[in-house]
Amino acid sequence: MRTFAPRRSLRKEAAWEKLSPVSLEQLCTLLAPERLENNLFRGQSQDLGWGTVYGGQVMGQALAAAARTVPEGRFVHSLHAYFLRPGGVRQPIVYDVDRIRDGGSFTTRRVVAIQNGEAIFNVATSFQVEEEGFDHHDQMPDAPAPESLPRIEDRDVERPFDVRRVDAEGGKPSRLVWLKAKGKLDGDRALHACLLAYVSDYSFMTTSLLPHQVTWQTPGMHVASLDHVMWFHRPFRVDDWLLHAIDSPSASGARGLVRGRVFDRQGRLVASTAQEGLIRMRPPKPGT
Amino acid sequence: MRTFAPRRSLRKEAAWEKLSPVSLEQLCTLLAPERLENNLFRGQSQDLGWGTVYGGQVMGQALAAAARTVPEGRFVHSLHAYFLRPGGVRQPIVYDVDRIRDGGSFTTRRVVAIQNGEAIFNVATSFQVEEEGFDHHDQMPDAPAPESLPRIEDRDVERPFDVRRVDAEGGKPSRLVWLKAKGKLDGDRALHACLLAYVSDYSFMTTSLLPHQVTWQTPGMHVASLDHVMWFHRPFRVDDWLLHAIDSPSASGARGLVRGRVFDRQGRLVASTAQEGLIRMRPPKPGT
Repeated sequence: MRTFAPRRSLRKEAAWEKLSPVSLEQLCTLLAPERLENNLFRGQSQDLGWGTVYGGQVMGQALAAAARTVPEGRFVHSLHAYFLRPGGVRQPIVYDVDRIRDGGSFTTRRVVAIQNGEAIFNVATSFQVEEEGFDHHDQMPDAPAPESLPRIEDRDVERPFDVRRVDAEGGKPSRLVWLKAKGKLDGDRALHACLLAYVSDYSFMTTSLLPHQVTWQTPGMHVASLDHVMWFHRPFRVDDWLLHAIDSPSASGARGLVRGRVFDRQGRLVASTAQEGLIRMRPPKPGT
Repeated sequence: MRTFAPRRSLRKEAAWEKLSPVSLEQLCTLLAPERLENNLFRGQSQDLGWGTVYGGQVMGQALAAAARTVPEGRFVHSLHAYFLRPGGVRQPIVYDVDRIRDGGSFTTRRVVAIQNGEAIFNVATSFQVEEEGFDHHDQMPDAPAPESLPRIEDRDVERPFDVRRVDAEGGKPSRLVWLKAKGKLDGDRALHACLLAYVSDYSFMTTSLLPHQVTWQTPGMHVASLDHVMWFHRPFRVDDWLLHAIDSPSASGARGLVRGRVFDRQGRLVASTAQEGLIRMRPPKPGT
């Protein structure tokens, strides 16, 4: 049997360190796909340096496309995505939006991202009018201040996000990641949601590798995102520090599951996340 | 603005206690929808006593339909569903399966459940060949043995599952729920997965109400599932006890989020779950 796995996020962490320069302004332009028809959008692809489109780009563009088919005053509260096939960086991606439900309080959309007639990605996402209601949330875990941590950068390449992280000790499958856009943004909630979708899987899936003494760079190791979930609980800004507190409850069957909670600097839980990914180890062939 | 919310699981807990008799055998028949065409299935609806179809039934039937379009030897490892509109109990539900990807190791399907030409539910779900790989999982929390707990039943009505639960003290948003099918089943992994999908949202969303001194029965309270996620980590049987350890990290905007981990009696983590639901309180109108 031929084994094939979606490679869209393969080596994304390498890419993050070696990626082509991209400014926050360029990223915001990328996350505003062109409208071709009422329910059809086209986004440009960005080559971050590793041959396939970065999955966060597709997720951010798909969410932006969906949001533009939703009435004013409704905000995304959840999205559920699958990564199906690697996206090519040399051509644009078409986003086909299915208006599956327009309700009194909730609007639901399904989006398929297409290249060469094939679905590379699908997402379902839901938007809601603003409502008041019961309020509780988990406490933010203790974390060193982001200013006290080094940037995950070793070269002076322009990047849209400042990322700083703390791994758990003792090989525990958990990690704290601080994230902040490099620059000021306007207050458009949809844009902040798309940018969080873009950056939320950075250092995410690889948290499931921490107990196993491997990294995505270990020879024979293949890491790729399979799905991605986000729930948006409260308004937030990505141009101030956000803490992504990640843990991996399980790895089995060459798959790892990670779950995250995103807090703002005041300790409010602003989003929850989860992702399952392929974490497959195949020893390199002799002689290679 | 007219406010409308999906009511599919409204009063499901009432229903559980007042539901029409249903045996495990009847449930297994319900979860085997009739094949109309390669990618079209029809499931019968079950009236549990509260006017709309129980969401777990739709989820279980949709998963069963998807599984029958997948090659032998591939097993479900995840599903992501949205509940869109209430399902009527007086007519069957048609399941339309989209074979969005057939890969070397993974098969992905999207299913829309339809009544009266409208989508009442959609799910995306992924299947994988069996693979070996890294292994870790969370420890099972301490829990009283199921035999030491009372059944959630006050009448001698035939039901397919034995359910026993422990709420956290002090109004914390967490709960432990033991689940076991009432009877022996064969070893078909797909059936066990559909049955867990069926039962997994019992006592699930209402965990988010525990800190707020209300239940789904409080006048003016409206509880309804919006989405549902499951990741299947390891083979399991629903005819032995499973522990669903649930917590709610957040409630805001009239929505609650719950996350769960399902352990077998040996302490193996066999599945992870999550659901967002509407938890809306509207004081009853004067005179009603």
